[in-house]
Amino acid sequence: MLKELLYPKSIAIIGASQNPGKVGYGLVANLVQGGFKGHIVPVSLTATKILEQKCYKTLVEYKGKIDLGLVAVPVKAVKEAVESCVDAGAKAVIVITAGFKEVGAEGLKLERELVEYAKASDLRLLGPNCIGVLNTHHQMNATFAPAMPPPGRISVISQSGALCVAILDWAATEKIGMGKVISLGNKAELNEVDFLEALAEDKETAVIVGYLENIVDGARFLQVAEQTAGQKPVLILKAGTTKAGAKAASSHTGSLAGADVAYTAAFKHSGVIRAESFERLFDYALAFGTQPLPAGNRVTIITNAGGPGIMAADASEANGLELLPPTDAARAKLKEFLPTTAAFGNPIDVIGDADPARYIKALEVLQDDPNTDAILVLVTPQNMTAPLELAQALEKAHKKKKPLLTAFMGGSAIAGAKEYLTSVGIPNYPSPERAVLSLKAMCDYAAWRKRPTRVVLRFPVNRRRVDRLIARYVRMQNKQVSEVEAKEILAAYGFRTLPGSLATDREESVEVAERIGYPVVMKVVSPSIIHKSDLGGVLINLGSADQVRDAYDLIVTRSKRFAPKAVLRGVYVEKMGRRGREVILGLTRDPQFGPMLMFGLGGIFVEVLKDVAFHLAPVTADEAMQMLKLTRSYSLLMGARGQKPVDLAAIANAIQRISQLATDYPQIAELDINPFIVGEVGTEAYAADARITLNFPENFEPSHE
Amino acid sequence: MLKELLYPKSIAIIGASQNPGKVGYGLVANLVQGGFKGHIVPVSLTATKILEQKCYKTLVEYKGKIDLGLVAVPVKAVKEAVESCVDAGAKAVIVITAGFKEVGAEGLKLERELVEYAKASDLRLLGPNCIGVLNTHHQMNATFAPAMPPPGRISVISQSGALCVAILDWAATEKIGMGKVISLGNKAELNEVDFLEALAEDKETAVIVGYLENIVDGARFLQVAEQTAGQKPVLILKAGTTKAGAKAASSHTGSLAGADVAYTAAFKHSGVIRAESFERLFDYALAFGTQPLPAGNRVTIITNAGGPGIMAADASEANGLELLPPTDAARAKLKEFLPTTAAFGNPIDVIGDADPARYIKALEVLQDDPNTDAILVLVTPQNMTAPLELAQALEKAHKKKKPLLTAFMGGSAIAGAKEYLTSVGIPNYPSPERAVLSLKAMCDYAAWRKRPTRVVLRFPVNRRRVDRLIARYVRMQNKQVSEVEAKEILAAYGFRTLPGSLATDREESVEVAERIGYPVVMKVVSPSIIHKSDLGGVLINLGSADQVRDAYDLIVTRSKRFAPKAVLRGVYVEKMGRRGREVILGLTRDPQFGPMLMFGLGGIFVEVLKDVAFHLAPVTADEAMQMLKLTRSYSLLMGARGQKPVDLAAIANAIQRISQLATDYPQIAELDINPFIVGEVGTEAYAADARITLNFPENFEPSHE
Repeated sequence: MLKELLYPKSIAIIGASQNPGKVGYGLVANLVQGGFKGHIVPVSLTATKILEQKCYKTLVEYKGKIDLGLVAVPVKAVKEAVESCVDAGAKAVIVITAGFKEVGAEGLKLERELVEYAKASDLRLLGPNCIGVLNTHHQMNATFAPAMPPPGRISVISQSGALCVAILDWAATEKIGMGKVISLGNKAELNEVDFLEALAEDKETAVIVGYLENIVDGARFLQVAEQTAGQKPVLILKAGTTKAGAKAASSHTGSLAGADVAYTAAFKHSGVIRAESFERLFDYALAFGTQPLPAGNRVTIITNAGGPGIMAADASEANGLELLPPTDAARAKLKEFLPTTAAFGNPIDVIGDADPARYIKALEVLQDDPNTDAILVLVTPQNMTAPLELAQALEKAHKKKKPLLTAFMGGSAIAGAKEYLTSVGIPNYPSPERAVLSLKAMCDYAAWRKRPTRVVLRFPVNRRRVDRLIARYVRMQNKQVSEVEAKEILAAYGFRTLPGSLATDREESVEVAERIGYPVVMKVVSPSIIHKSDLGGVLINLGSADQVRDAYDLIVTRSKRFAPKAVLRGVYVEKMGRRGREVILGLTRDPQFGPMLMFGLGGIFVEVLKDVAFHLAPVTADEAMQMLKLTRSYSLLMGARGQKPVDLAAIANAIQRISQLATDYPQIAELDINPFIVGEVGTEAYAADARITLNFPENFEPSHE
Repeated sequence: MLKELLYPKSIAIIGASQNPGKVGYGLVANLVQGGFKGHIVPVSLTATKILEQKCYKTLVEYKGKIDLGLVAVPVKAVKEAVESCVDAGAKAVIVITAGFKEVGAEGLKLERELVEYAKASDLRLLGPNCIGVLNTHHQMNATFAPAMPPPGRISVISQSGALCVAILDWAATEKIGMGKVISLGNKAELNEVDFLEALAEDKETAVIVGYLENIVDGARFLQVAEQTAGQKPVLILKAGTTKAGAKAASSHTGSLAGADVAYTAAFKHSGVIRAESFERLFDYALAFGTQPLPAGNRVTIITNAGGPGIMAADASEANGLELLPPTDAARAKLKEFLPTTAAFGNPIDVIGDADPARYIKALEVLQDDPNTDAILVLVTPQNMTAPLELAQALEKAHKKKKPLLTAFMGGSAIAGAKEYLTSVGIPNYPSPERAVLSLKAMCDYAAWRKRPTRVVLRFPVNRRRVDRLIARYVRMQNKQVSEVEAKEILAAYGFRTLPGSLATDREESVEVAERIGYPVVMKVVSPSIIHKSDLGGVLINLGSADQVRDAYDLIVTRSKRFAPKAVLRGVYVEKMGRRGREVILGLTRDPQFGPMLMFGLGGIFVEVLKDVAFHLAPVTADEAMQMLKLTRSYSLLMGARGQKPVDLAAIANAIQRISQLATDYPQIAELDINPFIVGEVGTEAYAADARITLNFPENFEPSHE
């Protein structure tokens, strides 16, 4: 768990300085002033003593062993400094110095050399271009940011060093407890996943907060994040979500931001809670770091003023939290002590003249009320309120079975209460809405924790057939699979397709039609024609030999006219299928997170309304069904407007089969089944058209042949 | 402008008290300690002196005149106390006492008596059930909340007294300047509209902030709010937006919350900026209260750290703000002093070692850059940052042509800067996202201020025909207008409908069909059958006399079977119309804000996706077109998927005609044209079906007959 980095016994500072304006001074000063109990070994060419610490010209001169090296020398001297740390026994080095990957090609080269050296030397390397690491539980401030917050259970990993500085300064001022605070820098060797792993194990960390601009290794992230989130909440602000944001990201650290939809899918899959803004990141962390998870999403609001109560109710409903009234038993108890002018529903208005005792009695009733999972206490400072006493009483009365969140509103009148609440671990927010949003994040995470065990079904399929088909394309070095063969691949994976055959002349097309039976559909087949309909290459509902003959000619003529360079393989003659609801099933591969499955209703729903749902593969039956429900048009599938519902299970089944195909064949880069036709329950769904794009290196050899 | 209330020279406190726990003490103490320069006249049955102020047993004993009375006596004694104020010359009274409308029927009766008395006596009455009024510009704290914020240009009206207390406490602590702070209470006589009017005129108020749970007089609000917003920004948090919120609202002040969609339409119409949460309300107010409006929606971000820059860029893009790079000229200037490792796009990263001078040079360049309308300065506290000096330099350099918003992030390191920025009127936010949202609100308001003059077209119509039709329904006391007559009304307002006639037997239906030409549509006509299709009462595409005969029988048989009690007036035979895009046009009346026009695409778009747009009537041509653009399905009308665009102008024209009809005939409560069929430009659109519901008092006499 990165013990040498997070719990070193001795730290060398290469590039220590006597000049208080320099980073090399800040590093030494913060270790000393932070109360670090281990050995501090400043290495400086000029200084002899810094803050009473003896300095050394080189680490060789020091002679002793060190666990961790902090490197803050000019960029050209970094490599040598790192080497000197390794020579002195260091198992971990933090390179503070900037001027690597983020400044261009030359910096990137130096950075790569560092990483190679680190790997060869079994060295864990953090940075470069970072502010360091702080560990309150080890009284270690190995950063050049001077603020040291009190020890706490929130640990932070941040891809922005400046943000770490701001966070530490804020936390120290507000007395928010922090555990480990890690500045990731350029993530040359150690990255977010390493720290997720380390903090998952760390007993002093209750919640992990991350600021990330990209993720280095998507596959490993998915695995480690899910494991970590299974133990403790992981909250991440992923910046660079929009086009403009991503542009800023690439000019900042040279990192390529993954597509936002893939991040959303990845976070959802792995139980990571995504914070939409910097403020929410820590709003959520305060709640997660101190409160038990709610058993469900029912919240009760206790307030001494109507206005804030309504705001909280509005926000709760807008965010899908439930506001049940108290049970009859609870209401009867409330009636015993609340004035008749109080409101006994939800919000419960204990009214303006409530003293702490009245609030506490209400809290006690609701802690035992089975109609609620979480309690939100809103306070405006009025004559009888006594905010500090109320805060103290809340802490005493809180049984910690249900989460308790508060919003004390005001300034100096509630300042004492606010500070007290922070010190005892009751999250307090300046507005009702922020409290509600934090509770909502807890509910989402609690629901994820209770998710059923993921069982990915495996269907019996014909892999040999797919192997052979793909091998043929590899031999031809052709990455665009024709409709005919795409359907063969789907058929091998249990998809129903319609009977049909390729015809290479007029009469063969009639023969095929006579064999499979009228009416038929005819479609041009050419490796270079992907959008067949656009050039009139698809004709439907052909009912006789004459119509089929004419259609053959027409399709060939049109293809030659509109795609003169295309090589025509012939015309595909297919049985005309039953009508039904058109849906689109798809697969794409995100460069970070791999196979992403897509579902959407066909036609305008996908093309105009962009009403689609994504999920990472592999997918479970339940997750496939969830994808359907996530689209706005789901109610249409359910049979809106007097129609019968379509066979939802057939769609979910098809999604799972694509998921299996995606997992089995990394060579399949993209797949579209458009449309997949699905009817009422009892009818058979089928793939009416399909398109597959392969991706393989030149001279790729398929494994199964 | 409510001078007696906001600028009284003498104030009597009826129910003054020597007991510091009592409201009657707080009122006197706050006036004295707030430094009120006028006469303070405490009236108390028991006290002789409160805080050196001589007390009187009654106002009669005082003998002098008073301008304003504060009444804080028990509820039963309020009426008499108010009367004594009037007798002493008071033109305004604030009733602090609670226990009126909000506690039930008896309280409501007392409240009504008060209002009647006030109206008869020409008295302006604020409250009851409020905390009073504070006016920093008059050194008057006539509330029982002790906090007195510094004078400023933000004025507040709030329907929640407790919220006023919290706001005042917060503003005093954070040293946020306030102007007038008004607690509305039960709004028995004076309400939000009166104060909008007063604050619109008030030269010391630059921005009006409101917390409202309902609006008393929708029509007057629309008029006054639009006038006020034309002079200065009006920001309102309307609580009780969701079902749960509205429930809380009605249990709180007994007010009935209007439908949220109507509030949204009303605020939009009148230029009121709606804040989505309590925090945003004041975030926005700080920006509006201090900064010039932006000329457009292009923002430039200056930052000393990548992370916050990306957050701001993400938020800007998500909120529709534009991030242009600097002009070439500006970039050249930036290159002169920014380090090569800086980022010269947008965000502009002046990088971590930026001192105040570097920030200021960048600000100066961008203030003159025509590529940007607003500047957002992000600051993390780093070694060279010197936040306070930077804040001071920003204030000095700010030309106040473009808005300048800042986000200094951190705790004690930026505390001094934060306080300084507040004191000099540069809005500062704890996170980039909050700064961006505030700027977005400014851009929206600036766009509204620049809206073209509203010209509501009036079409030549046949009112006599509509008068007659409506009069007939009034005589019959029938509020459900049949399709036939609804179409006549529409025809009188210039709508195209299809030729057709009512037939009362089989042969008449054939005669009609022969006259208008085949194919025809036939529909049952009965005052009690509204949803004709549901019982099979509509048959289409009838092409011959035989088919018409059969259809007649079938419709009558079905109607008798499925609606045995319905009186059948016959069957409407109508020419079958051309196919086209089906849209729905509608009218409903909001109890607060009056006629609301609706537009949506037909079928699933309305029924399943609820993809509709509302606008208050009367509507301009531009606003009608805006309604179309506000639907998600707008691109379908524009001709997605290779189709030609439909005649948008025809839809907008139809919306305006309904608007005119709604304005002309308040008796029309609801109207649906479903579907309105619209084709390509050049084809004629028509109303294929219509339904009108009237609303008139018993024995209503139409005006035009």
